[in-house]
Amino acid sequence: MSVLRRGNGASVEEEEVMEVEASPLVRSATADEPLQSGGSRRRERGRSAHGGLQSSHRLLAYSDALISIVATVMILPVCHTKIRTDQELEESLQQLLATKIAVYIMTFLIVTVAWASHIRLFQVIEQIDDVLALLNLACMMLITFLPYTFSLMASFPDDKLGILSFCVCAIIIGLIQAYAVLALVIFLPYITQGTQWCGNKIKGQKEIQRVSFYTFHPNEPLSKERIEAFSDGVFAIVATLLILDICEDNVPEPKEVAVKFHGKLFEALIEYGPEFLAYFGSFVTVGLLWFVHHSLFLYITKSTRLMGLLNTVSLAFIGGLPLAFQLTHEFAAKSHNEIEAIQISCVIIFLASLFQFAIWVAALHNEKENLHHHIHYGGKEHAFMFAKLSLYPSVAFITFCLTYILSRFSTEIFHLMQIIVPFAFVLLRIIVRIALVILTWLFSRLKPRTSVLNEEEESVISGNET
Amino acid sequence: MSVLRRGNGASVEEEEVMEVEASPLVRSATADEPLQSGGSRRRERGRSAHGGLQSSHRLLAYSDALISIVATVMILPVCHTKIRTDQELEESLQQLLATKIAVYIMTFLIVTVAWASHIRLFQVIEQIDDVLALLNLACMMLITFLPYTFSLMASFPDDKLGILSFCVCAIIIGLIQAYAVLALVIFLPYITQGTQWCGNKIKGQKEIQRVSFYTFHPNEPLSKERIEAFSDGVFAIVATLLILDICEDNVPEPKEVAVKFHGKLFEALIEYGPEFLAYFGSFVTVGLLWFVHHSLFLYITKSTRLMGLLNTVSLAFIGGLPLAFQLTHEFAAKSHNEIEAIQISCVIIFLASLFQFAIWVAALHNEKENLHHHIHYGGKEHAFMFAKLSLYPSVAFITFCLTYILSRFSTEIFHLMQIIVPFAFVLLRIIVRIALVILTWLFSRLKPRTSVLNEEEESVISGNET
Repeated sequence: MSVLRRGNGASVEEEEVMEVEASPLVRSATADEPLQSGGSRRRERGRSAHGGLQSSHRLLAYSDALISIVATVMILPVCHTKIRTDQELEESLQQLLATKIAVYIMTFLIVTVAWASHIRLFQVIEQIDDVLALLNLACMMLITFLPYTFSLMASFPDDKLGILSFCVCAIIIGLIQAYAVLALVIFLPYITQGTQWCGNKIKGQKEIQRVSFYTFHPNEPLSKERIEAFSDGVFAIVATLLILDICEDNVPEPKEVAVKFHGKLFEALIEYGPEFLAYFGSFVTVGLLWFVHHSLFLYITKSTRLMGLLNTVSLAFIGGLPLAFQLTHEFAAKSHNEIEAIQISCVIIFLASLFQFAIWVAALHNEKENLHHHIHYGGKEHAFMFAKLSLYPSVAFITFCLTYILSRFSTEIFHLMQIIVPFAFVLLRIIVRIALVILTWLFSRLKPRTSVLNEEEESVISGNET
Repeated sequence: MSVLRRGNGASVEEEEVMEVEASPLVRSATADEPLQSGGSRRRERGRSAHGGLQSSHRLLAYSDALISIVATVMILPVCHTKIRTDQELEESLQQLLATKIAVYIMTFLIVTVAWASHIRLFQVIEQIDDVLALLNLACMMLITFLPYTFSLMASFPDDKLGILSFCVCAIIIGLIQAYAVLALVIFLPYITQGTQWCGNKIKGQKEIQRVSFYTFHPNEPLSKERIEAFSDGVFAIVATLLILDICEDNVPEPKEVAVKFHGKLFEALIEYGPEFLAYFGSFVTVGLLWFVHHSLFLYITKSTRLMGLLNTVSLAFIGGLPLAFQLTHEFAAKSHNEIEAIQISCVIIFLASLFQFAIWVAALHNEKENLHHHIHYGGKEHAFMFAKLSLYPSVAFITFCLTYILSRFSTEIFHLMQIIVPFAFVLLRIIVRIALVILTWLFSRLKPRTSVLNEEEESVISGNET
């Protein structure tokens, strides 16, 4: 529904709304009418797909899903790089870092840039027809091909073919988008008018539709709904990349079970125990990071470019989680590598959650515009949000420190810690709530103002996390 | 936004709306108020997440994405089964069919059943709090684990452990969902009332919120928006599974290029030519099947259980497309297997598109309830839809026949055909439009009624396809 991607309303006169209705392809600058008047009619029309025009909502959802999966998929070649257990992790990591991680990060950023330009395009185009839908699919096909050109560039840095193929893809994507804007948005109204005029002449009718022109609204911020959809896609694919590995590699061979474990399947599965633990631990981590992201974006009303950028960086680190999973469950034996794998996992989780925290800070910077009015700095909801956002960075940091302090730290302990975290989330809410009730009661007795509450809350929260 | 999952409105008195507002967790049976009155206020509240309650919209979108990916992922073990080129395809296919395809289809159906029960659950629950969101994530984790229990069952049919682990997962999922309904929906209102009463006693306030009880609306059809989201997920992951294979396998080794092709990268890439063609062909096919699905669901206002079932079967076949891709690009050499691979691809595409057509037929069966009012049987929009839906079954059928008639049919021709189809879609629309204008003009001259138009359109369409 196109209504979803609309700013909060300002009352517009009925006549102006009518004019907006007459130009269905173009997202008008004056289209800020409230939902109660023109919006519901527009929605009605958007869903009915009359005269070949359709609401672009589902096209955008599908594009978001495709782009988010493609952005994340390039972590797989990094994960599937075989590391020999006798090798030092540091050495093989350097080899990894040199090409594949660079390819992953570059792909993620480039694909996100393509996605951002796609957002900007569909801020102009509100409704689509079949040709535009097909062009968009062609665009998506080329975007999905970008990762391949990148791995080509990384494998053959001296050959110009990689860069050439990347540029060709980028130029064609740009041309399709330019065509969409130029031909369909600027010239189509004239063409439609012309053909309609001809058609009506033949049919003998005299009704001619008014067609208005292209208007662009460049100050519209990044669409919050599309950022959510893109993030959902990344989280979903990261969570399921893990089960993909489990299903492919961890089903024991019937022959092996018969010979090695005397036909006892349960004993064979116990051997895979650490991997299941790793799977559940990682799924919980991805799920909770999504949960924090979800809670965060419930409070945000408008997303700025900075917040979009911070979100992209956070998602890029979340895309690195399958690598962390691969590392921790590959070195189940107690070795020097095992501790290093846990440390890398901690760093990835720490950075991913820290950039989520940064989104919150960026939103607080312009509190009145970006956040809901009842979430003021120092309020109750603010305390909850602060606690939720700071839980993962502090847990990751503490775990990182523990690997140095404790001598017998292992991946099992690490994954058990990951599984315990959700209970911390549940407890967090209860403890913060009880603490706030007590504090409010205390302060209402001592003195009437409550602005000192803020520092108190923070100390309660940090006390709860340790 | 919860507004999305609401039926079309009937005017309700203001007092009743207020009562609905007071029970935020429960999707009420009387909640059919139009968007203009209570809906916009509800939406406002749903987004603001006041008092720990949140709109469930994004949670559902994320769940849909996860479930659709998990349902489709089990095609990968089928695809990655190594088939020796000297082996006859039929023999190895029998081996495949025996276990892995059965596992894939069973997983797909079971996961879809879990998804359907998830839909039903969230038809009751309208808004969520943090505990419910975390419980939902736990539920998702177990659903993602179901495919593994299935592959265990298939590998060890005699061992009870596979069935046992599957049952344990299913029971825990059921318990969590039952807990959500029982504890949160039925008992939570009392608990909330109690704690609020206590809290207000301590604070010295006297305002007590009214809390209404659990109401269930079992006759609500399957949510159209969630079917769309689930389908989008399946289409997106199927389209990107292809690029995943390309990125992992088709980047040539630097050493091989230096020795075999004298450092000429372009010549090395030409060797992969058929695979790129296969990728583009398959992406186009998946994209266009999504496009047809998208066009179809634009016209549908309400989805019945039968349509949901047909959609699931269609999606299961679409999930089989990576297998078709794997088969066609594995047998690039001119052999008996190559023709069989093309035939299997045709059968998969034919069945997937045929079940899409069946959705349309099922929707036409109760035209007034399920379709938009201006899409009547025999109208212009109906003709377009009919043409779109029948294009893929007929193309697949004709290609299947061609493999018997033509002696020199190859995968290259097959993939080129796949890439040509979108132009057929564009042409289709133009030809149907011109034909309709001519026909309308002719019939308006000959006789005033236009009901005979329908047969004429069909013959025009089939003439266009051949």
